[in-house]
Amino acid sequence: MLAGGALALGGALAGAGAGAAAAGRGTGESRPQPPGYGVQKVPFHGPHQAGIDTPAQAHAVFLGFDLDGGTDRAALGRMMRLLTDDAARLTGGAPALADTEAELAELPARLTVTFGFGPGFFTAAGLDDRRPASLAPLPVFSIDRLQDHWCGGDLLIQICADDPLTVAHAQRMLVKDARTFARLRWAQRGFRRGRGVQEDGVTQRNLMGQIDGTVNPAPGSDVFAGAVWAEDGPEWLRGGTTMVLRRIRMELETWDAADTRAKEFSIGRTLGTGAPLTGAAETDPPDFAARDAFGLPVISEFAHVRRAHVADPRQQIFRRPFNYDDAPAADGTPDTGLLFASFQRDVAGQFLPIQRALAASDLLNQWTTPIGSAVFAIPPGCAPGGWIGQTLLG
Amino acid sequence: MLAGGALALGGALAGAGAGAAAAGRGTGESRPQPPGYGVQKVPFHGPHQAGIDTPAQAHAVFLGFDLDGGTDRAALGRMMRLLTDDAARLTGGAPALADTEAELAELPARLTVTFGFGPGFFTAAGLDDRRPASLAPLPVFSIDRLQDHWCGGDLLIQICADDPLTVAHAQRMLVKDARTFARLRWAQRGFRRGRGVQEDGVTQRNLMGQIDGTVNPAPGSDVFAGAVWAEDGPEWLRGGTTMVLRRIRMELETWDAADTRAKEFSIGRTLGTGAPLTGAAETDPPDFAARDAFGLPVISEFAHVRRAHVADPRQQIFRRPFNYDDAPAADGTPDTGLLFASFQRDVAGQFLPIQRALAASDLLNQWTTPIGSAVFAIPPGCAPGGWIGQTLLG
Repeated sequence: MLAGGALALGGALAGAGAGAAAAGRGTGESRPQPPGYGVQKVPFHGPHQAGIDTPAQAHAVFLGFDLDGGTDRAALGRMMRLLTDDAARLTGGAPALADTEAELAELPARLTVTFGFGPGFFTAAGLDDRRPASLAPLPVFSIDRLQDHWCGGDLLIQICADDPLTVAHAQRMLVKDARTFARLRWAQRGFRRGRGVQEDGVTQRNLMGQIDGTVNPAPGSDVFAGAVWAEDGPEWLRGGTTMVLRRIRMELETWDAADTRAKEFSIGRTLGTGAPLTGAAETDPPDFAARDAFGLPVISEFAHVRRAHVADPRQQIFRRPFNYDDAPAADGTPDTGLLFASFQRDVAGQFLPIQRALAASDLLNQWTTPIGSAVFAIPPGCAPGGWIGQTLLG
Repeated sequence: MLAGGALALGGALAGAGAGAAAAGRGTGESRPQPPGYGVQKVPFHGPHQAGIDTPAQAHAVFLGFDLDGGTDRAALGRMMRLLTDDAARLTGGAPALADTEAELAELPARLTVTFGFGPGFFTAAGLDDRRPASLAPLPVFSIDRLQDHWCGGDLLIQICADDPLTVAHAQRMLVKDARTFARLRWAQRGFRRGRGVQEDGVTQRNLMGQIDGTVNPAPGSDVFAGAVWAEDGPEWLRGGTTMVLRRIRMELETWDAADTRAKEFSIGRTLGTGAPLTGAAETDPPDFAARDAFGLPVISEFAHVRRAHVADPRQQIFRRPFNYDDAPAADGTPDTGLLFASFQRDVAGQFLPIQRALAASDLLNQWTTPIGSAVFAIPPGCAPGGWIGQTLLG
């Protein structure tokens, strides 16, 4: 996978001809414009699936399916070949094999499609012995208020692109592929800042107003590789990873009633710049030992930034969250939050210790409520001609 | 209101300083990038409300409210002053008066907020005599399958921006303003191509794959002004207009089963280029008299392009639609369609004749089902210090 800057440049070059042609079309008056980023592509094939170390696109949908009874190992193989084939076509800007709106496939806009296998996938395949040891529903934490219809799932399809029409079309095509084998359990649509609203690479704010995601391993770095890509455990998963998807509701009604000092005390960072309370810039490392004039820690023992801190780089997780904002209730209560997706080699060794520390005493828990939870093994990528899941099912 | 190109240029110039500063922040390595379009603004004040002749943004939400009992003319005046004040701040890139996530207001991304008054608004104000004659729920057409929870509403707030986070934040602030006076009846979120995915000004495709919106009066033209801005009728509405909002479900399951020839025959245009069946380019005027070798009309008597054709420019409507794509059902059936918003001086004289012609015999009706319907008077704009609705309530 290329880094953000190189990718954008590559896309711009690839699209230059098409853009100039389109701009001049018809009227003879319009001046050439730079090509749209709709033509930019992220390679589908490779040792890892795309959509993990890909700089997060503006739009995403996470689809969770329950497999139909009778979908056995052979059927799962057919399903994954079909899905892989269409995902490769669509991410390349080509119509799906049986595409009924082929024209909507023309602008991939950095489309990625990422597949994951929930615990039930292994049971259906008769391959429980190949399931990663820690791939199981997460333990219920005291802060959780889980709703069953946002939890679980045997098959995950994560679709991301910089354009919402592209996401909608890819969703339609892939749901049609999967429906012979599975029923849709949930669909969770999320978004980040629109592509180009801010400069690429700026850490974004979530809907609580926080700059969210400052501490995250950099894709392409050794720290990222060590934290994310599976290098032991089941042979078939090498080069893959695991995903935890949590639907975290933001309690904006009470968050809005808190003052800025209370919010910043809970986070351990300032809202304006995202700098730690002990620093001046967003990327300054927090000084957890610093004390104020009264001898009290500047960053509270219970601040989110301290509770979420991980000293060992190999125990970090890679967060790739999207916002959600569904229709408010009649009285104006928002239905707003985060689709918190994290990738890590090992759920038990990385995600769970962080989640336990947060659940125990993170001040931010006052304003955030997990209402959905799912875990998936994310198989490695494949070469052209191969298919996702082949190392498990093939 | 500026045209698209001039607006984009203005925004780019306004944002140049901020963009360069941000790109250089922190690392000292990143090269300057062009400024994000998040800084672009659409003027709130003027003779007309923004969000009508503004080139359609990438994201929109339409909010319909029922007024609480006891919300009288004085209360409506307070509500509209509050809403106008916050809309002016937010569209200018400033926080709302009581903004609890002020940092989310920094990137307006061409945010517009447009207010409308449904029939019940006039009753609540004791001003039924000032209601435009044709402002009433539309007659139910034979093709309609209306669902009450997508219909009606006393107050409309249309929020549009090129960034979904900006829309979400503006929605939160304006819902908080309105909740003292009204309950939310429906919220309909829609989208178009992401800003910058294609060149500005390209006619977009909808989720049926059609190029949709070729025949539309050009904002700024005399035809547009004559069709859209009220120049007779109630004095208070001069410079305003009316909006019809229809929620039109696309029956994609059966549409997908039709072949390309059947689809093109129904539309009267080719799917690939959007050209009429009698022409070669999208903007070629349809030749309704043309006949084929068998003496039959090339464009069917029942094709959408013929049924929707309006000869008199003053009887045209201005369409400003957005796509919707909510979660599919468990069996994969999509919940997809159009938020069809049209603006016209007069509902009875412009919208209804077109709708009657379409309802009677448009072939496209096989694949589209209106499930929501609402009408609103859209008051004129206001100058700084004034407020939307002042000409009615003040």
